[in-house]
Amino acid sequence: MKGIKRLAQHLDISIGTVSRALNGKPDVNEETRKRVLDAAAKLGYAPNQAGRSLRRGTTNAIGFMIETNEETEANSDNFFLGVIAGLTGALLRHNLDLVVLPCSVNEDPHDYLQRIVARRLVDAVIISATQREDRRIDLLKAAHVPFIALGRTGGPDEHAWIDLDFEGVAHEAVARLVARGHKQIAVAIPDTDINLGYVFRDAFIDALARHGLTVDPSFIIRARSSEHGGYTIGNAILAMEDRPTAVVLVYEMMAIGLYRRLNEAGLTPGQDLAIVGFREGPQSQFLSPALTCFRMSLRDLGIGLAEGLLATMPDYADLYPAGPMHKLWPMELVEGESDGMVIDR
Amino acid sequence: MKGIKRLAQHLDISIGTVSRALNGKPDVNEETRKRVLDAAAKLGYAPNQAGRSLRRGTTNAIGFMIETNEETEANSDNFFLGVIAGLTGALLRHNLDLVVLPCSVNEDPHDYLQRIVARRLVDAVIISATQREDRRIDLLKAAHVPFIALGRTGGPDEHAWIDLDFEGVAHEAVARLVARGHKQIAVAIPDTDINLGYVFRDAFIDALARHGLTVDPSFIIRARSSEHGGYTIGNAILAMEDRPTAVVLVYEMMAIGLYRRLNEAGLTPGQDLAIVGFREGPQSQFLSPALTCFRMSLRDLGIGLAEGLLATMPDYADLYPAGPMHKLWPMELVEGESDGMVIDR
Repeated sequence: MKGIKRLAQHLDISIGTVSRALNGKPDVNEETRKRVLDAAAKLGYAPNQAGRSLRRGTTNAIGFMIETNEETEANSDNFFLGVIAGLTGALLRHNLDLVVLPCSVNEDPHDYLQRIVARRLVDAVIISATQREDRRIDLLKAAHVPFIALGRTGGPDEHAWIDLDFEGVAHEAVARLVARGHKQIAVAIPDTDINLGYVFRDAFIDALARHGLTVDPSFIIRARSSEHGGYTIGNAILAMEDRPTAVVLVYEMMAIGLYRRLNEAGLTPGQDLAIVGFREGPQSQFLSPALTCFRMSLRDLGIGLAEGLLATMPDYADLYPAGPMHKLWPMELVEGESDGMVIDR
Repeated sequence: MKGIKRLAQHLDISIGTVSRALNGKPDVNEETRKRVLDAAAKLGYAPNQAGRSLRRGTTNAIGFMIETNEETEANSDNFFLGVIAGLTGALLRHNLDLVVLPCSVNEDPHDYLQRIVARRLVDAVIISATQREDRRIDLLKAAHVPFIALGRTGGPDEHAWIDLDFEGVAHEAVARLVARGHKQIAVAIPDTDINLGYVFRDAFIDALARHGLTVDPSFIIRARSSEHGGYTIGNAILAMEDRPTAVVLVYEMMAIGLYRRLNEAGLTPGQDLAIVGFREGPQSQFLSPALTCFRMSLRDLGIGLAEGLLATMPDYADLYPAGPMHKLWPMELVEGESDGMVIDR
């Protein structure tokens, strides 16, 4: 194992150039960078603290913390893979590598991130699955680790964040259903403390209010964010004496289980119950009738997150002068047939 | 930002204890570890090279390199999330964190890994999607980075690896189909240079030979490993003058597109064409007729990979005395109705 000095000697290149090549600086030509990386790998280079400690953060790695739980395992949710593709591309502009930090459901997210931060595995972090009260925010602020959140919290949220436009989705979904005569509209939200459940519920209630409607508390259905959760939503609705005529889902995988449960009961989505799904996923096209849902580019969201994060990092902030962002990510309606029915008024 | 010495002073704990706590050694009690990690995060601790360079590899991070491409993004493949869950749990026994290293399809996997190795982001690596000739193996050997491969290569493969039992699947699938009178059996494999395509093709030909059958070269169908790939397999089969009566798929998502193409042509899986899928996935249960496929525990595979990797790491090898492994991971038949038809002999 060699330090940077011996690596420079071996290559007959200046220490400064070797350092810039290793740290992905743009002023090193591609051929030199390849030579340096090749030699570093072959000779077993170990980063020298003298270089590392000059300023905070020189791993050139950006962490993307995701939670892995029974649901993400059993499910087939392509959300993170799509976002990762966008993130990777945008970070590579600056020779930064994305590393995904999977936090198991068995571990407290705060304690997990605390260990990652203490070990200095990454220069900056993207957190996701924000909770209503999310102690990770305070941790990252106190440790002066640049970060952006995918998702709002219940707090003031002065830090950089991007979140899906749950309000826009709730308003558009409710407006469509009301226009077709629905007054008994239910909403399905996660049964966890993830903040998006609160945001979507509040947006839904607000959307109903705009049309002079109030929500029956039993129509706010909590379920797991999974196909199975959708099945239990079906159970809940079928068990009601006074059933809703429509339901708005906050998670696309729920639609699959809900369709299945309705089919088992001899009911047809879009005829016996209007359904508006959430994000258009690869499954949507295989559902019959086609699911009314909302489209977004996961890759663009990844690029947006990367740029928002870079704006918070001292070394890159100049290149992203718009600065730390607070952004609601728009989603575009995809009309299907799952909410086609019209209710007699 | 503090070094380890100032961190120890602040906590009034010995430098050795702080170091062991930061490096996840088991001989530090939980309360002390929490105090140390808490202080390291709050005070902005930076690892001291004096400690880091004592021996190779003290990031306490294990890398899991996966390839992200158009297919993994557009698809809904839960394979990696399941494996990650198993890996994370097994590595946490030793206070090691898993970081996922997503290599974009736009980058050469060897060059990507070379950069990761040069930057010493991780202590050891799990590689996946092994190619027939995989230069990453030589790179990791030359750099003395402990590793295990998920997947064989076309080479001698003396290093540690775990691969799915493609041979077992091919033999069981062919035996089932032959027992039902099929002689015209096709196989679908990826259209890339990933090694599993070669392994599965060879196992398939070998399985046919055991029953005295030979393969029609046009029955070896190459397609993308995706739902869309399954659709093109359907196109290919429908265009044949002398069609196969059965097809064995190497990727479960292919079944979805193939079902769709057959349905569009007015044909029924399991009646007009026998289909044996590959791995049982969340989608399988939503296919009608139910897909005959093979079951495995992704979590157990993740645990197996972690243990196989730990056996190659000097610090942990003693705890995993079985040593580096070469293992074919078994898969268990799940009988569906997609291969129910019997051919008149």
